[in-house]
Amino acid sequence: MKPSIPKGTRDFGHKQVLKRNYIFNSLKDVFQLHAYFPLETPTMENLSTLTGKYGDEGDQLIFKVLNSGNYLENISDEEFKNPKKLASKICEKALRYDLTIPFARYVVQNRNEITFPFKRYQIQPVWRADRPQKGRYREFYQCDIDVIGSNSLANELEIIEVINEVFQSLNLNVITKINNRKLLFEIAKWIGCENNFIGFTVVLDKLDKIGLEKVLEELSNKNFNQEMLNKTKHVLSINGSNSEKIEQLKNLIFNHTAKSEGLQEIEFLLNNSTNNSINNIELDITLARGLNYYTGCIFEIKTAVGEFSSSIGGGGRYDNLTGMFGLKDISGVGISFGADRIYDVLEELNLFPSQTKPPFILVIHSGEKEQKKAFEIASKIRTLHIPIMVYPDIAKFKKQLDYANQTEAEFAVIIGEDELKENKFSVKNLITGEQQKLNEVELIKYFQK
Amino acid sequence: MKPSIPKGTRDFGHKQVLKRNYIFNSLKDVFQLHAYFPLETPTMENLSTLTGKYGDEGDQLIFKVLNSGNYLENISDEEFKNPKKLASKICEKALRYDLTIPFARYVVQNRNEITFPFKRYQIQPVWRADRPQKGRYREFYQCDIDVIGSNSLANELEIIEVINEVFQSLNLNVITKINNRKLLFEIAKWIGCENNFIGFTVVLDKLDKIGLEKVLEELSNKNFNQEMLNKTKHVLSINGSNSEKIEQLKNLIFNHTAKSEGLQEIEFLLNNSTNNSINNIELDITLARGLNYYTGCIFEIKTAVGEFSSSIGGGGRYDNLTGMFGLKDISGVGISFGADRIYDVLEELNLFPSQTKPPFILVIHSGEKEQKKAFEIASKIRTLHIPIMVYPDIAKFKKQLDYANQTEAEFAVIIGEDELKENKFSVKNLITGEQQKLNEVELIKYFQK
Repeated sequence: MKPSIPKGTRDFGHKQVLKRNYIFNSLKDVFQLHAYFPLETPTMENLSTLTGKYGDEGDQLIFKVLNSGNYLENISDEEFKNPKKLASKICEKALRYDLTIPFARYVVQNRNEITFPFKRYQIQPVWRADRPQKGRYREFYQCDIDVIGSNSLANELEIIEVINEVFQSLNLNVITKINNRKLLFEIAKWIGCENNFIGFTVVLDKLDKIGLEKVLEELSNKNFNQEMLNKTKHVLSINGSNSEKIEQLKNLIFNHTAKSEGLQEIEFLLNNSTNNSINNIELDITLARGLNYYTGCIFEIKTAVGEFSSSIGGGGRYDNLTGMFGLKDISGVGISFGADRIYDVLEELNLFPSQTKPPFILVIHSGEKEQKKAFEIASKIRTLHIPIMVYPDIAKFKKQLDYANQTEAEFAVIIGEDELKENKFSVKNLITGEQQKLNEVELIKYFQK
Repeated sequence: MKPSIPKGTRDFGHKQVLKRNYIFNSLKDVFQLHAYFPLETPTMENLSTLTGKYGDEGDQLIFKVLNSGNYLENISDEEFKNPKKLASKICEKALRYDLTIPFARYVVQNRNEITFPFKRYQIQPVWRADRPQKGRYREFYQCDIDVIGSNSLANELEIIEVINEVFQSLNLNVITKINNRKLLFEIAKWIGCENNFIGFTVVLDKLDKIGLEKVLEELSNKNFNQEMLNKTKHVLSINGSNSEKIEQLKNLIFNHTAKSEGLQEIEFLLNNSTNNSINNIELDITLARGLNYYTGCIFEIKTAVGEFSSSIGGGGRYDNLTGMFGLKDISGVGISFGADRIYDVLEELNLFPSQTKPPFILVIHSGEKEQKKAFEIASKIRTLHIPIMVYPDIAKFKKQLDYANQTEAEFAVIIGEDELKENKFSVKNLITGEQQKLNEVELIKYFQK
């Protein structure tokens, strides 16, 4: 009978909501200043819209919604025995798993009304049936910007600008790792594993977590011969500054003559980013990003918390995302900020502004007549745009003052018998303890400041 | 293959989002000024938290979420044949159906941390498997305030104030109908139907839709005898101003001597509401409100749209809402604003402010060098907090200007070869058509205004 909520989900009290809004508003502000405008899509999508878009593992993590009415009609005995098949018959709808696929669906569905290049931001929760653990929730917010219908690298440049401005406004130091799927493919070709490109990138993506030895072991299990392993080792030993890495790549792979489209794109971004951003960009040729719809530049935003490096956002260019819904040859690029991860980092580093709760006033009173007076003065003070409430019950001053303290009111306006008689108000600053008696005009002036 | 979204759900493009935010922000503003602070609860609740709280019909409309993993384990053959039983076995979670039950659940779950009286606002979507029709959606927003842990009618007074301020700020004329479940019970006693009080109120609630004759017919089917029907007719013929209605009630039912708690509460609210609100309050003794957890004062907010009277909000006092989760004897009162209904009404009456989209600037350019310059000036103008973007592709002026018009940009900053050479910028007001050539300092000044 003790009430609870599903694991991996959370209630947010007002302090958390205000902190979360601080993040959302900082993001929105920057997005809008770059002329990304808002889009919201429904919580439920058709299951068929989502299925097959996130890989087999992703499919398992989609929350499905049971059909309403008699959902068991027309189910064969065989379907009853197959949980997977049955699920897709008894559930036509599912909860949004990310914001990218619904965005692609929206673009295709509204292709005739949309002006391309189409820029939008979207800040909404998504749901995944992941095993809950520290920092990983089943309901969490994604904050995405995308621009679709333009091939130009100017869009990547703008995304780098946006990342920079967002974290400047949040006062958080981040590193934006960049790489390029075309470069990765060129590297795979040089190694000789271009036929198993996806397998190669999946293993590469784990380097951070499992280390070089294990990566080579896994590649060896994927039939990499000694020469391929040696070449991989060579590639992974590339290090230094961005320009040093590029130089080494040119030496090793492209022999200073072959043209590398991936490398050219990276150099363009590094050469054209503003001074402000460039310091925070790091070319990381081991960055692969799991999702296979990326085709060009890829990003990952990292921040240092204690000894850990935490990923708080990522994205990239996709050349054919809308193709899966029947609209071909439209290229787009986007990035997703993980609001819940950012929240945890700001909390850990104590980077939230100290005042996130609006200050407010409690009016306390000694009885019915005084309460009536309290309502009148509260209504007048409220026109100054200050949150103010009248204690609703008839109660002892002590109890009302305790309430003021517990709810962190900044001021109490007190109306006792004396104040009513004198047509005055006592006002107490609950932080300094200072108290004074003022008439109505003086009281309004007091709060105008 | 043509992509679509589930029926009864909607995508919101940026114009709609901005209009919706206008409503949400107006509500939030007033809520906060009355010291209601935000709470957010998860989209999914345990199914057991919701079941049985909304009546049999409500239970049917709850969207259930399929368990992840092998949800068919440990299901007996018998359960397989019973859709209702099976649903509660294969679905442990469900989508939020309203904000009131999750609020009650939250209060009980956090009873030891909460300071009572506890005031919160909550603006979140809810989901109902209703048959979609004009103005009725399967995903829609509720905007609730509640105060729990106080018996005082001062809370009802404040809610009336909030309603008044909300619709003043939205410029919408509304009538707040009020009634009292205690008065309804006293009336039922006088009629002689207190043993079937709920049945009585359910029929009463339909008066608006089906008319007096049909109401009497339905009551007759519920075993009302002729005397009871006559008394009902008497009650329903009460009319006039609020004070006239009260006078007639006193004459008819309470014989000017019996004490009516319900009537006393109503009189208190009418006598103590501010001048501003009182004009919009109408005592309606046929108002019953379907949900049976209401025990005292009840509200319904109506507005006139053409010939129709539309309900855009409602609420009331409940004396034992948290009792269903094991926390007894805590009284609360709240009201819910229907944002989607309000949206439709404001749209119909053309009451949205004309400027809901932030004005923005498009920078257009004649080539790569000019685009680089465009990025630089955009970044500077952005510090004035004006949305601005650089056209991402290299394209003809005509194409870029078309884009500016289609996306409703207010200004174009143009950088052609000449401008680049002269180190100037052409700026065009896209509404007036005015165009002038300015240097950087002049351009910044131009947009500062």
